[in-house]
Amino acid sequence: MRMVDIIEKKRDGKALSTQEINFFIEGYTKGTIPDYQASALAMAIYFQDMDERERADLTLAMVNSGDTIDLSSIQGIKVDKHSTGGVGDTTTLVLAPLVASLGVPVAKMSGRGLGHTGGTIDKLESIKGFHVELTKEQFIDLVNKDKVAVMSPSGNLTPADKKLYALRDVTGTVNSIPLIASSIMSKKIAAGADAIVLDVKTGYGAFMKTEKDAEELAHAMVRIGNNVGRKTVAIISDMSQPLGFAIGNALEVKEAIDTLKGKGPKDLTKLVLTLGSQMVILAGKAKNTDEAKQMLLDSINNGKAIAKFKEFIQNQGGDTSIIEDTSKLPQAKYKIELPALKSGYVSRMIANEIGIASMLLGAGRATKDDKIDLAVGIVLHKKIGDKVEKGESLLTIYSNKENITEVKQKLYDNIFIEDTATKPTLIHEIITD
Amino acid sequence: MRMVDIIEKKRDGKALSTQEINFFIEGYTKGTIPDYQASALAMAIYFQDMDERERADLTLAMVNSGDTIDLSSIQGIKVDKHSTGGVGDTTTLVLAPLVASLGVPVAKMSGRGLGHTGGTIDKLESIKGFHVELTKEQFIDLVNKDKVAVMSPSGNLTPADKKLYALRDVTGTVNSIPLIASSIMSKKIAAGADAIVLDVKTGYGAFMKTEKDAEELAHAMVRIGNNVGRKTVAIISDMSQPLGFAIGNALEVKEAIDTLKGKGPKDLTKLVLTLGSQMVILAGKAKNTDEAKQMLLDSINNGKAIAKFKEFIQNQGGDTSIIEDTSKLPQAKYKIELPALKSGYVSRMIANEIGIASMLLGAGRATKDDKIDLAVGIVLHKKIGDKVEKGESLLTIYSNKENITEVKQKLYDNIFIEDTATKPTLIHEIITD
Repeated sequence: MRMVDIIEKKRDGKALSTQEINFFIEGYTKGTIPDYQASALAMAIYFQDMDERERADLTLAMVNSGDTIDLSSIQGIKVDKHSTGGVGDTTTLVLAPLVASLGVPVAKMSGRGLGHTGGTIDKLESIKGFHVELTKEQFIDLVNKDKVAVMSPSGNLTPADKKLYALRDVTGTVNSIPLIASSIMSKKIAAGADAIVLDVKTGYGAFMKTEKDAEELAHAMVRIGNNVGRKTVAIISDMSQPLGFAIGNALEVKEAIDTLKGKGPKDLTKLVLTLGSQMVILAGKAKNTDEAKQMLLDSINNGKAIAKFKEFIQNQGGDTSIIEDTSKLPQAKYKIELPALKSGYVSRMIANEIGIASMLLGAGRATKDDKIDLAVGIVLHKKIGDKVEKGESLLTIYSNKENITEVKQKLYDNIFIEDTATKPTLIHEIITD
Repeated sequence: MRMVDIIEKKRDGKALSTQEINFFIEGYTKGTIPDYQASALAMAIYFQDMDERERADLTLAMVNSGDTIDLSSIQGIKVDKHSTGGVGDTTTLVLAPLVASLGVPVAKMSGRGLGHTGGTIDKLESIKGFHVELTKEQFIDLVNKDKVAVMSPSGNLTPADKKLYALRDVTGTVNSIPLIASSIMSKKIAAGADAIVLDVKTGYGAFMKTEKDAEELAHAMVRIGNNVGRKTVAIISDMSQPLGFAIGNALEVKEAIDTLKGKGPKDLTKLVLTLGSQMVILAGKAKNTDEAKQMLLDSINNGKAIAKFKEFIQNQGGDTSIIEDTSKLPQAKYKIELPALKSGYVSRMIANEIGIASMLLGAGRATKDDKIDLAVGIVLHKKIGDKVEKGESLLTIYSNKENITEVKQKLYDNIFIEDTATKPTLIHEIITD
């Protein structure tokens, strides 16, 4: 088999065989196939696409390129959730204890990553003492006993995906549905998921700017999952404005606590119930959405959800007193209000730019070596459709720097006040095939 | 400027600016732009094409990537000829002395190269003593005095093209009109041509299999030439069967001598007159094709053409007695006839396969280090449309090996005898814009 023939076959619009896809991924992982052939193939895939069978094959080839995590000794169906990434997305912090409180095992592999705020692990580390240094045995025992634990994956998961993603980033081949879908799905499958719930964000601030693109990606991932024996459901949700109110690490932990107590922002709560009910159904704990939603609501209302969060924190060494007293979370030195410059309705909030404002405060990493400031961030007081009077505070900036002229300017530039405004729909669609 | 932005711009179907094309070619030549970005861009160009201005810019950028040959001290308009490559293509050996005999300066840069037979220099080295070791000054003096000389180009011509061509070869991006056209034109321009006549071959045995593809390539090259100030004309000629009768180095020298004496194969003579008259017109020595053709024919008939060939050989140290006695050229040990297996008409001769048969005898190089056997090759007795009786010789094989079963089989497999046959048209078109 020659790589150049595989490139030409795809270039000419033909489907690659399983053997050809494996030859490419194995050779590229080992380094016998050079970057310049991989990038040419990626560009050919960009133009010629891949059919469903090829996408499933590519996903499995990437799973098999490295280590995989065996969660078979955890009882029950392990359902993982993945978000394509948004701003102020606190859902994982809420969902993990919430669905675990219903007996669904949540064996969460998480990372730190780059972005507007830290990853799930960074956020949890706002809680004094919380740590993810668990052996695999401790992790599995915790999930079996208390249904929820989080750790950083050990081993070399999907090295082919890591290498290919870095290459795509510099060769104009990021925006390809088969390549995005197989990249995401391979990581979830290698991390041991039996079933997967996907939160595909759409709108300003999301990777998929249009609903059509989001739908296409959602279908692609759901079909890969179903074709490789992992039941998969995708929700298409709005990211034309930040989710909830908080953007920042400790600020989002506080918001998660509020939500688990039933006092969270409406949109975050709604999305959590939507994603959570799909997880509960996939785990076989409910027959339909109504039943699952009611179970989740009950768990919030009867205190089981917040109790599960407390147990989870305790199990991983964290200070549980923050649940009653969130002022024990890291606090920023300055709280600065951002007054509206005119009266009207908030009509647009460019979510990714607001995320960047939060990163500029220190809440997120631009490069791998950046240190995160867990205390800082933004808490919104107004969202799209809300009425606002001139001088009224749009949001509070939590900062450890006094001079934040640049951040303020970025926020003003990306929050629009007009005479009329339409609230965006939060849940666009649930995709099951 | 970032290379990834340039790749994405082309991927999205937009025209690259002159600055962007120069940035790419300069960076790629220097090595600051890696192969994996160049191959991604080449694949994007494959799908999205380049407009006329981009093609001209790419050509000039490749010319400027290395040394160029300055022929300005040669008097007159230097017209170069280029063939996209065929089988048994003896035209250069005939054209160089023929147009020089009319006072057109022929400053021929030639190479050895890979293929079914050697390059022009290999063929000329069949003549005892002939050498191309000329200083640039000797070369220019010879062309000024006697109008014709041949040498290997010195210096590092079009390094960007060499690097890009090698990359395209292994990344499925060879068959792209803008990339092929700019590659050919950059080499001709760097070698100092003022005007260019292109022989674009079409049919089995040619790089461009269909007339449509050949036309597209011809237009692309002619427009590049005209856009960068080099008058360019292209002929589209048939390569569904080998040109002339001879395929092999010494065998083609003999055929060239016959043709210069007016006793050459009809098709070779016709093509030489067609290409030659365009060269004579571009050099400003004739007003139209009829006049130019008559001048060339006169030169053949009155002996000036063959006299010029003799002078040319003498100037470069060769044994001129081969002109009267071609048996002094290298002779093969065995002459083996190939009898027809049935009666009928020769209906098809797959030219490139017949070329490979010649290479198997030792007439050409498969890799750079192969040594050529100048004596061996094939001389056809029948061509498409000719009647043949069972047992009659189709061709003579000139070999230094006795066992040539494989070569014979290849020839039988690629020469078809049927009840009817149509002679192919030799000259399809002359393209001037």
